[in-house]
Amino acid sequence: MGDNIAINGERLLANLQRFAEIGATPKGGVNRQALTDLDRQARRRLAELAAKRGFSVFQDEIANLFIRREGRNPALPPMLIGSHLDSQPLGGKFDGALGTLAAFEVLETLEDHGIETERPVEVVAFTNEEGCRFAPGCMGSMAFAAGELPASWQDLRAVDGASLADELAATLASLPEATMRPLGFPVFAYLEVHIEQGRLLESEALSIGIVTGIQGTRWLDVELTGQTAHAGTTLLKFRRDPMRVAVQALAGLYDHIMPSDERARFTVGRMSLKPGAVNAIPESVRLTIDIRHPETPALDAMEQIIRDSFARQAGEQDCQAIVTRIFDMPPAEFPSTMADTLSACADRLQLGSRRMLSGAFHDALFMNRIAPAAMIFVPCRDGLSHNELEHVEPDHSIAGCRLLAAAVLDLCAS
Amino acid sequence: MGDNIAINGERLLANLQRFAEIGATPKGGVNRQALTDLDRQARRRLAELAAKRGFSVFQDEIANLFIRREGRNPALPPMLIGSHLDSQPLGGKFDGALGTLAAFEVLETLEDHGIETERPVEVVAFTNEEGCRFAPGCMGSMAFAAGELPASWQDLRAVDGASLADELAATLASLPEATMRPLGFPVFAYLEVHIEQGRLLESEALSIGIVTGIQGTRWLDVELTGQTAHAGTTLLKFRRDPMRVAVQALAGLYDHIMPSDERARFTVGRMSLKPGAVNAIPESVRLTIDIRHPETPALDAMEQIIRDSFARQAGEQDCQAIVTRIFDMPPAEFPSTMADTLSACADRLQLGSRRMLSGAFHDALFMNRIAPAAMIFVPCRDGLSHNELEHVEPDHSIAGCRLLAAAVLDLCAS
Repeated sequence: MGDNIAINGERLLANLQRFAEIGATPKGGVNRQALTDLDRQARRRLAELAAKRGFSVFQDEIANLFIRREGRNPALPPMLIGSHLDSQPLGGKFDGALGTLAAFEVLETLEDHGIETERPVEVVAFTNEEGCRFAPGCMGSMAFAAGELPASWQDLRAVDGASLADELAATLASLPEATMRPLGFPVFAYLEVHIEQGRLLESEALSIGIVTGIQGTRWLDVELTGQTAHAGTTLLKFRRDPMRVAVQALAGLYDHIMPSDERARFTVGRMSLKPGAVNAIPESVRLTIDIRHPETPALDAMEQIIRDSFARQAGEQDCQAIVTRIFDMPPAEFPSTMADTLSACADRLQLGSRRMLSGAFHDALFMNRIAPAAMIFVPCRDGLSHNELEHVEPDHSIAGCRLLAAAVLDLCAS
Repeated sequence: MGDNIAINGERLLANLQRFAEIGATPKGGVNRQALTDLDRQARRRLAELAAKRGFSVFQDEIANLFIRREGRNPALPPMLIGSHLDSQPLGGKFDGALGTLAAFEVLETLEDHGIETERPVEVVAFTNEEGCRFAPGCMGSMAFAAGELPASWQDLRAVDGASLADELAATLASLPEATMRPLGFPVFAYLEVHIEQGRLLESEALSIGIVTGIQGTRWLDVELTGQTAHAGTTLLKFRRDPMRVAVQALAGLYDHIMPSDERARFTVGRMSLKPGAVNAIPESVRLTIDIRHPETPALDAMEQIIRDSFARQAGEQDCQAIVTRIFDMPPAEFPSTMADTLSACADRLQLGSRRMLSGAFHDALFMNRIAPAAMIFVPCRDGLSHNELEHVEPDHSIAGCRLLAAAVLDLCAS
C-alpha cells in the first residue's frame, strides 16, 4: 500500500494517562497485577472504548481479551496487534499498556479514516504477561500458542493465595458482553509495540528498535554446601567455606562470560547464606544465575562453563555444588520479512531506527511459534522498567504507534 | 604447693548431664538462653547444690551468680573461677556449662578434702555470655569489669521483645536467698575452663589448651550500591552491578588475607541482595565481614586492605561502597605468669597441652582488664560448637577440671 496514515497522537497519550490511573502508585507508577480487580477495571475500560467504536469484544479460556475490527473477508485469519495490561507490583505506566493502547489507536485510526482492510484486524491484551502474581509469565500468549492450558495450571495459586481458576472465572464474568471464543486460532501475523527496557536506543538517540528476535534465557539455581564453623576459631586448613566457593567461581564468571561475548548476559540477582550469622562460616550458600544469549549452543556452552566452575571450586574447598536449571526459554528468531517491512515503514516515516534483539521475553516470543511475529521497541528513559519511574517520551510513544499503523496497512495489503 | 588433688570426675559428669536436661533439645543440644525461665532454673540448681555444701550465694545488679567458699582470711580478694550457664538457641551441653560446673567441682573437691585456702575461692556464672537474646554478649563480665551498667542497656530489649530490666528483676527475684552485693570487686585472679570451639587440640590429640590471649575481633558492614536493571536488556557497558563489585573485592580478599597470615581470620557470614529478583541486576548488596587477629596493628592493616579493595572495585563499576565498623573487640593478652602456672600444673598432671590463642571472645577477656586471667581449653569433637552436636569426651572434661583444681591450689598458695 505504502500510504502513510495519521494516527491521533493526543488520543493515544490521553488513553495512556487514563489507564495509568487504574492502579496508580504514589510515585507515579502502576500496580495492576494480573487477574486482580484493577486488572479487570483496565479490561473493562478497553472493552467500553471498543463498544463505543462498534468493535466486537471476545475472550478466551485464559481471559485473553480481543477487540475485533471486521475485514472485508471475515473468514481470513486476522492481523493481530497488542500486548498486555497487567503490571509489576511497582511497575510503570508503559510496560504492556503502551503496546495495547497503541494497537487500539491503530484500530480507531482505521475507523476514523474509514479504511477497509481485506482481513480483520484485532487488538489483543494477553493475560498475565508479568508473571509476578501467578507464575509463569506470558500465560495468555503461551496458552494461545499451545491451544490449551497446561495441566500444571489447574491448581495454581498466586503468591497472595488466590486460585488461578477462581480469578480467571471472576475476570471472564466481569465482561459478560464479551463473546467467548476457543483458545487459539489461525493468525495472519502478530506485531507488538513495547518499551525497550534497556538503554541502547536512548544511547543512540533513536526512536525505534526493530526487534529481530528474542534472546534465550536460562535460570540456574546454585546450592553450595560446606560446613558451618566459628569464624574466630577455625583455621584456614579446617574451613569448608561455601561462600569462598561462590566468590571464587563467580569472580571468574564475571570476568569471562560477558566480557568475552557482547551478546551474552550473566546476572546474579539472588543470594542467601545459612545460618547467616556475622561470626559463622556459612553452612550453605544459595544463589541464582540468569544467563541469556540469542543462540542455543552459546547458552549450552555458558551453562557448561558455569557448572564446571562451581564444581572445580567446590572440589578445591571440599564443598558440594549442585547446579539446577530452573527455567529455560529458548531463543526466538522473528521472520526477516517482518523486520524488512518494519524497516521500510520506518524509513518512509523518517523514524530513526535500528535492528536489535530483545533481552527480555515477551508475548511475541510465543506468538512467533504460530504466526510471523515481530516487535517495535521505543526507548524508555535511562532504560528503567519494572520501576515506578519508567518513562517514555510522548514523541516516542507516538512514533511507535505510527510505525505500527503503517506496518499493519503494509502487511494487510499484501 | 605442688600437690595434686583428686577431683570427683563422676560427679562432674553427672552434673554436666543434669544441667544439660535444663533446656534440652531433641537433637541432644541445649536451648537455655540468657535470663529466660530455663536460665533461672539452671541458676537455681547451682544455688541448691551450693547450699547443700554450705557455700554462700551472691548476686549482683547484672545477675552474675557467685558461690563462695570462705578462706582463712575473708578480707582477701577471692580467687574467681567459672564461666556462664546461658546457651545459644541451638547450642550444646558444654559451652559455658563445663566451665561453671568444673569450677563448682573444684569448690566441692576442696570441701571434700577439707582443704583450707588463705583466700576465698568463688565460682561465678556470668550473665548472658552468648549475646543471642540480648546483645551484646559477655554482659555480665563486661559490667563486672566496668563496675557499672552502660546507660545504653537501660531500655534494652531482647529479640523476643522482653525488656532487660524486667528479666534481670525476675532473675534476681528467683533466688531470694542469695545476698545482693555491689557490682565489681577486687579479684585475685580469674580462671575459666572452656571448650576450644576449634579443631586444633583435636588435630594434635592434646587434651589441654593453655590460652595465652584472645585475638581481636572486628565486624565490618559493607553496603554496595549500584543500579538495578533488567538482566536481559542491560549491556555490560551500562551495568552498575554491586554484586560484581562484591565478588571481585571478596575474591581478592579470600586469596590474600588468610593465606598470607596464618593468624588472620576472614569470614563473610551474611549477605543480601536487593531487590533479590532472579532477573534483575541488584540495586544494592549488603554483607558482613568478621576479621580477627591477635595484634591490633594487623587488624588495622586488614581493615584498610578491605576498605581499599571495596573502594577500588566500586570505583571501577561506578558503584558506591560504604564500609562501617560495627563491632570492635581489641585483642587481650593474658599475663605470662598465668600461662606458666597452667603449664607447670599440666606437666605435673601429665596432661598433653599446648599454648594457644582463643579465636572466640570469652568472659575472661573482660576479667583480664581487672585481674590476672587465663583460660583452659579442652577439645570438642570436630571443633563443633554453637551446635546441638557439640561434644566433649568425658576424659577431656575431667582433664580440664583437674588442671583447674591444680592451678587454683598453686595460685592460692603463692
